[in-house]
Amino acid sequence: MAEPTQATLSEHNRSRILSHLYHHGVESRASIAKALELTPAAITKITAKLLEAGVIDETGDIGGSRNRRSIGLTLDKSRFHVVGVKFARSLVEIGVFDLAGKQLADREITAIDPEDIPSAIADVHRIVESLLAADDGIVAIGMAVPGPYLRNIGRTAVVSSMEEWRKVNFLDEFSDAFSVPVFVEHDARAGALAQHLFDPDCDTGSLAYYLIGEGVGLGVLENGRTINGSQGAATEIGHISIDANGERCECGNYGCLESMCSAVTIHRMLVEDGRIVPDAASMTHRDACNALFAAAASGNADARGLVEKIGTIVGYGAVTIFNAFNPERIVLGDIVAGAGQPLLDAVQRVVDERVIPELAEHTTISLSRLPADAAVTGAAAVAITQFLANPSMFFEIA
Amino acid sequence: MAEPTQATLSEHNRSRILSHLYHHGVESRASIAKALELTPAAITKITAKLLEAGVIDETGDIGGSRNRRSIGLTLDKSRFHVVGVKFARSLVEIGVFDLAGKQLADREITAIDPEDIPSAIADVHRIVESLLAADDGIVAIGMAVPGPYLRNIGRTAVVSSMEEWRKVNFLDEFSDAFSVPVFVEHDARAGALAQHLFDPDCDTGSLAYYLIGEGVGLGVLENGRTINGSQGAATEIGHISIDANGERCECGNYGCLESMCSAVTIHRMLVEDGRIVPDAASMTHRDACNALFAAAASGNADARGLVEKIGTIVGYGAVTIFNAFNPERIVLGDIVAGAGQPLLDAVQRVVDERVIPELAEHTTISLSRLPADAAVTGAAAVAITQFLANPSMFFEIA
Repeated sequence: MAEPTQATLSEHNRSRILSHLYHHGVESRASIAKALELTPAAITKITAKLLEAGVIDETGDIGGSRNRRSIGLTLDKSRFHVVGVKFARSLVEIGVFDLAGKQLADREITAIDPEDIPSAIADVHRIVESLLAADDGIVAIGMAVPGPYLRNIGRTAVVSSMEEWRKVNFLDEFSDAFSVPVFVEHDARAGALAQHLFDPDCDTGSLAYYLIGEGVGLGVLENGRTINGSQGAATEIGHISIDANGERCECGNYGCLESMCSAVTIHRMLVEDGRIVPDAASMTHRDACNALFAAAASGNADARGLVEKIGTIVGYGAVTIFNAFNPERIVLGDIVAGAGQPLLDAVQRVVDERVIPELAEHTTISLSRLPADAAVTGAAAVAITQFLANPSMFFEIA
Repeated sequence: MAEPTQATLSEHNRSRILSHLYHHGVESRASIAKALELTPAAITKITAKLLEAGVIDETGDIGGSRNRRSIGLTLDKSRFHVVGVKFARSLVEIGVFDLAGKQLADREITAIDPEDIPSAIADVHRIVESLLAADDGIVAIGMAVPGPYLRNIGRTAVVSSMEEWRKVNFLDEFSDAFSVPVFVEHDARAGALAQHLFDPDCDTGSLAYYLIGEGVGLGVLENGRTINGSQGAATEIGHISIDANGERCECGNYGCLESMCSAVTIHRMLVEDGRIVPDAASMTHRDACNALFAAAASGNADARGLVEKIGTIVGYGAVTIFNAFNPERIVLGDIVAGAGQPLLDAVQRVVDERVIPELAEHTTISLSRLPADAAVTGAAAVAITQFLANPSMFFEIA
């Protein structure tokens, strides 16, 4: 029974080596040993098993220190593939990615009829099965679902616009459904993992991904791990009140951030306004928001004013993120982040005014640099994170 | 160089065994092995070293399973002592405690002249030295300081009423000042550790301690560890806005929770009111609050109304704690928690109205059961937590 702990240690070191190769490319055994403070003997032993299992490869000689040559080790990110499945309120997007987050085939998109969730679920089963049949490089499936999500039991918590989804238990439905493991995560937390894996500037263990889309969510890494809470429902920034005397939200709380700056709210504002985006009523939330941002960029003063107003509210949320989580980096992502620099400027202005200077100075706020249409990469990142953390789930390692 | 990792594993298992004995009293090697999933051989090896170092003791035979007798192991909580030093805005309290949190001598209290911080610091040095000289069972010193505290660099962040304290770097000032190690922690986080160690009902790794005193603070355990943030300034609930359009706080933010329900604010309300506690102006913050709570308990309708109003605001903060951290348990502590059941009822009412039912049902909200005058126990808990986590800092372990 000591084996679990010793085995845990071995797996931990395997994971550290794989993660190091993931983030640093080709490395010699000696440089890995130095970076991870492991003995050369331990590195030799662990990498031999990873080589034998086909997880990593040896490359030709690379330059070593003091003119010694040494053999490089590498994790071939293109060899292993994952499926990412992103559930949103109105559609499901499914894509195949390599470990670098590169999309390998056209995304599959299934519209969701809120009255017929079972048929959307059946579509997901069918599409994933066909992707698995077509690509034997797929090692895992990641799924991202909107919050509030009860991560530990696998269901969304009650929010009336997602009422029908409450009946779906994602873990029961998908955990053992396919020939490879499935991992389900809250969408904003999935986004935080994607930033951490795919943007080299976000290679920090203290990161907040602030998702401002149809919903408003947050994923926070503290010491490289997501903050989850006892039911997996922590970091629900969208339902934190920024005005306890404000209007009631469908979650039960009052003055929720989400109700003031989501893409849904912005779309409603545009329809009510009627002038900035005249045909907003016939557009999707995303298209209406993008039309607003385009109008602002082309100099429309009303559009600029509205972006400024939205940025101020997004800034209030950022101030709460500082005081609640004090991350080293905050990344704004999803539809509303598409407003770009004017939005970021408004957020930064609010932060500079309202956050204690020693905290504000320490934290970088930026826009996501991942492709805006690739929200599904977050789902892929969930699977890749597990691949790097628990290699023995995916390979026979002697 | 593999040694650090192997040594870390050994220390980790020593810490787990010590913590298990701390929370469970006398246990046989076999029951420890079972609880911690370690082999009997590993337990025998580790406990032998702990016995040799004098950290734990063998007791006589205890009942084993199936009528086998076995020898008990125990951590004598009365043998090892710690000093707790609690810095508040207007005074420093210093006490000696055993590992169970039992106070061993009268507390020493030093008033702070805000214009002469250096003399308060000198007092702390002098008092701690004399306590160390009088008790060679003291193994560590814990200090608790008000937030916002930049834990990693050792200073409070700027808040104007604490301006002079900014010049003090607690780590520089105290880390190497004494013959035993010193640990400094944010006061609400120290309070969370105290609840975790000293209240058996709080033996959960998912705990929020909601400190409502002269300041309003929060300490959160996630998976048994405090959430700290990149600068150690996370979980600053007192400066999270509950009304982004509210009045400006000295921290720079608007509508901060602390400015609406701290003991300082309540005291000011009582002075302005003039009727509920007629001589409030001549009282300390604590005495004025206690007079209010006594008036409410004796049936004064205005006093009851004010406690209800304060409880509602404390409840808004609790709703934010649910949405930000989703803890399994929330404990209300410090001066304002002295209002007792009427305050707790108001908080629960707000939570029941505003939190998603599946989250609200899962989390217990309670009043601290630790002695209200023993805020300094939090400082002691900081030291005891380190003693249990890093035994090799305190003993020669071969």
